[in-house]
Amino acid sequence: MMITSTANKRVKAVSALMKKAEHRNKEGLFVIEGPRMFAEIPADRLVRVYATEKFLRENRSLQQAAVNGLVDTVTEEVLRAMSDTRTPQGVLALVKQYRYSLSSILRQQGTAHLMLLEAIQDPGNLGTILRTGEAAGITGVIIGGRSADIYSPKVIRSTMGSVFRVPFVETDDLGAAVAEVKKAGVRLAAAHLEGSVEYDAPDYTGPIGFVVGNEAAGLSPQTAEMADVCVRIPMYGSVESLNAAVAASVLMYEAARQRRHMAQG
Amino acid sequence: MMITSTANKRVKAVSALMKKAEHRNKEGLFVIEGPRMFAEIPADRLVRVYATEKFLRENRSLQQAAVNGLVDTVTEEVLRAMSDTRTPQGVLALVKQYRYSLSSILRQQGTAHLMLLEAIQDPGNLGTILRTGEAAGITGVIIGGRSADIYSPKVIRSTMGSVFRVPFVETDDLGAAVAEVKKAGVRLAAAHLEGSVEYDAPDYTGPIGFVVGNEAAGLSPQTAEMADVCVRIPMYGSVESLNAAVAASVLMYEAARQRRHMAQG
Repeated sequence: MMITSTANKRVKAVSALMKKAEHRNKEGLFVIEGPRMFAEIPADRLVRVYATEKFLRENRSLQQAAVNGLVDTVTEEVLRAMSDTRTPQGVLALVKQYRYSLSSILRQQGTAHLMLLEAIQDPGNLGTILRTGEAAGITGVIIGGRSADIYSPKVIRSTMGSVFRVPFVETDDLGAAVAEVKKAGVRLAAAHLEGSVEYDAPDYTGPIGFVVGNEAAGLSPQTAEMADVCVRIPMYGSVESLNAAVAASVLMYEAARQRRHMAQG
Repeated sequence: MMITSTANKRVKAVSALMKKAEHRNKEGLFVIEGPRMFAEIPADRLVRVYATEKFLRENRSLQQAAVNGLVDTVTEEVLRAMSDTRTPQGVLALVKQYRYSLSSILRQQGTAHLMLLEAIQDPGNLGTILRTGEAAGITGVIIGGRSADIYSPKVIRSTMGSVFRVPFVETDDLGAAVAEVKKAGVRLAAAHLEGSVEYDAPDYTGPIGFVVGNEAAGLSPQTAEMADVCVRIPMYGSVESLNAAVAASVLMYEAARQRRHMAQG
């Protein structure tokens, strides 16, 4: 079907999915944009594709989806009306949301390497933590309340596709999740400006979870207290704190570094 | 003087400084916004302050500047007209640009720990590299052509004040800068997806410079060839690359880690 009018019901429905978490969660869907993200969608997750004629002509990989009746052709104007970006790049897709459970994350293969996030509010930070996390070999992310919505277009974009591959779970009760993680034998290291040890002192080769707090306020005392150790990333100069995604990255790569050295003997 | 009209010449001049690098460089000024950044401006750099009456009442630190005739009072509406943000926070200031030279950066105290950036185009990445860099103890940043303008409001904001403290120099000839840095005895390690060694293998306790390339294209072959060693940050999963600021942060903190361990014996 060719959609030519921005007043079309489907256009309005996609636009609502873009803008509102409520709609996304009700439908169990999220939206991805652009050819790069499109190419990474696992086939079993793809619900619907909206693409310009030009994009369809140039992307043979879409032909199977088109045969399966998953593709609507849209004009550039219609795509812009659906899109979150000023210059949409020919394609947009609806994707099924993920429904991981904390227990499934804790049963992941390999030594646990978790991120526990408290109120990470900047979408770019949340997305970057998933992206860097995948690269550093993490086994899952636990996203506490008051964090950015993982399915918001900005978060999705900044994951660069890692949202399709890193298991995550959202929870409004981070305290309960922390308790369950600890019960599973995972040691928790919390990033804290007043941490008692430098971040590279503890051994991260066993099951580990890093706890990182809000961009401005840092970690709440309640959450910090539940950690087995509070670690400090040394800072020179007059810097008050690191960007949350940077702090998370330094920690995740320290664990990866220790594990690599252990494996290499 | 109280400015009440958005048509005031000064309002238009500040707005132009916000928006255009050309204006900033002609005037040798840049603009900072908000109380946090305001509090960090070195006194000898402050050229002019625009603040609301409310901000002036609540910030006694401004009184000396007011006595010196550096402060104009503005209405909320006027501040919004000048501002780059939707909700300006009571104060905005004009600050003198810095004029570091590469040779002065190379003469900085302490063992050289430099960042050399090739076409870092995202303002948030450039700002975050300065911020993390200060925290990791770098001695300067060399910003190659086609990078974001260091004095653009978004870069300034994301430095969180490090722009006032980390020496930097912009150059259109990164090749010449690289040659000068090497001549000064600094070893260069380039971040490269196909680097021959893992990033934590080389010794960074001597004079070191890290070379980081464009967000999408990575490092140009010409620049990579000039490095003494190309280093690889190992990546698991299907991640194609790390965010440029994250990659830079992992490298800078690895050097900081090695130096800390050396100092601790």
